[in-house]
Amino acid sequence: MTSSSDTRHLGGCLCGQVRFALKGPLADIQLCHCSQCRRAQGSAFAANIPAAEADLEFVSGAQALRLYESSPGKVRAFCGRCGSPLFSQTTARPGVVRLRAGTLDEPSGAKLGFHIFADSHADWWDIEDDLPRFSQRAPD
Amino acid sequence: MTSSSDTRHLGGCLCGQVRFALKGPLADIQLCHCSQCRRAQGSAFAANIPAAEADLEFVSGAQALRLYESSPGKVRAFCGRCGSPLFSQTTARPGVVRLRAGTLDEPSGAKLGFHIFADSHADWWDIEDDLPRFSQRAPD
Repeated sequence: MTSSSDTRHLGGCLCGQVRFALKGPLADIQLCHCSQCRRAQGSAFAANIPAAEADLEFVSGAQALRLYESSPGKVRAFCGRCGSPLFSQTTARPGVVRLRAGTLDEPSGAKLGFHIFADSHADWWDIEDDLPRFSQRAPD
Repeated sequence: MTSSSDTRHLGGCLCGQVRFALKGPLADIQLCHCSQCRRAQGSAFAANIPAAEADLEFVSGAQALRLYESSPGKVRAFCGRCGSPLFSQTTARPGVVRLRAGTLDEPSGAKLGFHIFADSHADWWDIEDDLPRFSQRAPD
């Protein structure tokens, strides 16, 4: 019998050196418009899927991961070979990683959830959809 | 007298090591949904501003740039310290760089132009705006 909790979502960086498997159903994507995420992605927003760190396994290439501490206690992980951003993690949320949705193999089955730090959106990107939006962090 | 051709647009990576200045008016942003750009950004699309290579000056941190050849003749540049994607360049378009709009300082004054590789969009991201869209590359 296969249940959704048995699912494994595969993904990796652009060069293929870092490959991961994420166990269990995917949480909805949080689109983060904060100024840090915009620069770190080079794009309009980061697309983050929160997950239990214990459910994320690096199948290969973990040694290629590079960590950058963008705020005290918060690190952003990327592939040192191709630069793909893979996840972030903060000591404020122990045991939780925020996987970058764009690194999932397609079809991913991921779904959009809501916007955070919506007030910080890029001046070239208006938020025009009907998803819930929070001016800063989402409430717990 | 100040004309738009005198403008300089500043930007840089998340950690601040790489800083650049782009001369002249900004071309419209091309939102690229191809599978490579999605992985390289970790997000729904890359937001690319084509510019003359001669107009892009690295004010600091050029030595921190890392290049990854994602297709023959096409390189993607990112900051080796923080991973921020900064630009791409291909031998198919000599003298042209495609700057990542999310790395521009705000307010950037950048404007959206059109979608490319729209048929390759992520399964979690529908293109719902009224911008022109091209299934693959834009016509020259």
